[in-house]
Amino acid sequence: MSETVNVAVDAMGGDNAPGEIVLGAVNAVKERENIIVHLLGTEDVVRSELSKYDYPKDRIIQVPTTEVIETGEPPVIAIRTKKNSSIVVGMQLVHSHKCDAFVSAGSSGAILVGGLVIVGRIKGVERPPLAPLFPTQKGCSIILDCGANVDARPSHLVQFAKMGSIYMQYVVGIDKPRVAILNIGAEEEKGNALVKETYPLLKNCPDINFIGSVEARDITEGAADVIVCEAFAGNIALKMYEGVGKTMLKEIKGAFMSSLRGKIGGLLVKPALKETLKKFDVSEYGGAPLLGLEGLVVKTHGSSKHKEVTNSIIQCISFKEQNINEKIKVNI
Amino acid sequence: MSETVNVAVDAMGGDNAPGEIVLGAVNAVKERENIIVHLLGTEDVVRSELSKYDYPKDRIIQVPTTEVIETGEPPVIAIRTKKNSSIVVGMQLVHSHKCDAFVSAGSSGAILVGGLVIVGRIKGVERPPLAPLFPTQKGCSIILDCGANVDARPSHLVQFAKMGSIYMQYVVGIDKPRVAILNIGAEEEKGNALVKETYPLLKNCPDINFIGSVEARDITEGAADVIVCEAFAGNIALKMYEGVGKTMLKEIKGAFMSSLRGKIGGLLVKPALKETLKKFDVSEYGGAPLLGLEGLVVKTHGSSKHKEVTNSIIQCISFKEQNINEKIKVNI
Repeated sequence: MSETVNVAVDAMGGDNAPGEIVLGAVNAVKERENIIVHLLGTEDVVRSELSKYDYPKDRIIQVPTTEVIETGEPPVIAIRTKKNSSIVVGMQLVHSHKCDAFVSAGSSGAILVGGLVIVGRIKGVERPPLAPLFPTQKGCSIILDCGANVDARPSHLVQFAKMGSIYMQYVVGIDKPRVAILNIGAEEEKGNALVKETYPLLKNCPDINFIGSVEARDITEGAADVIVCEAFAGNIALKMYEGVGKTMLKEIKGAFMSSLRGKIGGLLVKPALKETLKKFDVSEYGGAPLLGLEGLVVKTHGSSKHKEVTNSIIQCISFKEQNINEKIKVNI
Repeated sequence: MSETVNVAVDAMGGDNAPGEIVLGAVNAVKERENIIVHLLGTEDVVRSELSKYDYPKDRIIQVPTTEVIETGEPPVIAIRTKKNSSIVVGMQLVHSHKCDAFVSAGSSGAILVGGLVIVGRIKGVERPPLAPLFPTQKGCSIILDCGANVDARPSHLVQFAKMGSIYMQYVVGIDKPRVAILNIGAEEEKGNALVKETYPLLKNCPDINFIGSVEARDITEGAADVIVCEAFAGNIALKMYEGVGKTMLKEIKGAFMSSLRGKIGGLLVKPALKETLKKFDVSEYGGAPLLGLEGLVVKTHGSSKHKEVTNSIIQCISFKEQNINEKIKVNI
């Protein structure tokens, strides 16, 4: 049987905590026999949620915490002062190797700071990027950095390219993943100062399969497997993806409902449409790992429902099995 | 009757030139009686295209040119050396006030350089932004800068906010347009160095209705009327919009065709779907004006079909009628 993976899960973080988080954890241990979840949160609140479900009791361990870091709080102060919060305690479980990973839908800022300060960087990694997978026509791609380090430097982007390549090769199983830099044109002379400085570095990097620039409009077609960018641009690309998808679906559904003909047609196309939407549903891919830390930290959407939480927990298995951090250590 | 608007149109620029451009020009003069098109391009090529259509002959004037600036050419050299290209001659028609506007689907770089060097900036305007309208659930918004000035400074973004507000108020007809800065979080302390420096300047700018930050995922819902950003980020947001829309449609259509049930349903929902898609079709809004020049220069997509060309030409009417450049002069 495969090795057991211990995942600390923040039951208090995100818009739908604790209900959806706890259900996500319950489903994860039911789906995979080799997962043990350490569920962090206010003791009676979490117990009461857990009591709703039937699940293998020995594989969800409650870890009571007494504080909660709110989204609006200044991250550095929150991490320093709220020692008994679900985020700080979860990070410590990873730092002390009691857990392999920590999953949270809580404050992005606190998760980033906690990852750096408590879990710590792999030696040599300058800036750990937030690296979500997202669906494309060809399968999925990874985009990094998507929110951890604004105003990054060229050397950071080169490390992102290496870490993203390792992730795509060993977790997703793509041989020689195609690395591209997010740009506003295909030609080498296009771009802002950061892109122009980074481009030749990527071109001369022997460890990656660099294919040049990728424009945002070609990302969803699957034009590259690893997309490297500074966090501000990456965050905008990913959130635009989510926003356009959401708006178009809403509009299409609304259009179907506007006439009897549309309603009948809508019923007929429903299964096919559902299948397509599932393919382009970011929550199918779990959360975004913060790559380059001495342990795995996964940030899921603040709006995560149970399915995304489950997928984020399950995602930790391949990360451990493939020994991603060892590979990053060797490569950086 | 309303004033005549003279529009120079580049028949040689873009992936579908000259066919779609010439047809777009023909349709524009047929749709609006107060437009005169000055059609720039290789004489016999343009004449042969024009001969296919029936249109008011006195309102399309052929302006023969002998050179073409290709997309890959270094823009500054191209503008300097190809004096008889459709882009250079078109810009000169605007500079000499023989035309009110120039519309081109050609090389973005050459159009930007030509706009600055030949048409010239309005006094006080630091950097003319590329400012496309795009569809949202609530109607449309303008995003600027979308590709003209990478690595812009805070003072540029403040001018973008003012020019965008004028455009939305007088061309689109939105009273007190809501201005937001594109950001990666809603809180004031979020963002990169540029956003953090620009935010207080916008907040204290009396001429605009600043509502704070907007995240990319809320743009398509219509969260702001004027979205201000640096060109790299803006270009990524807009192209991501186009890419996701295109991919989703392709996938949805593919899904309908995958079964008989889907095919029948697809036929029934077709009219409703078509209506929705039309609403979210960027080409309905014409091209992107380069704001802040001593005349109007409109860049349409390289892949423009005739409809976008027609709409781009027609768009020039309100720009002239509303005297946008005078208003910019007063405000900057």
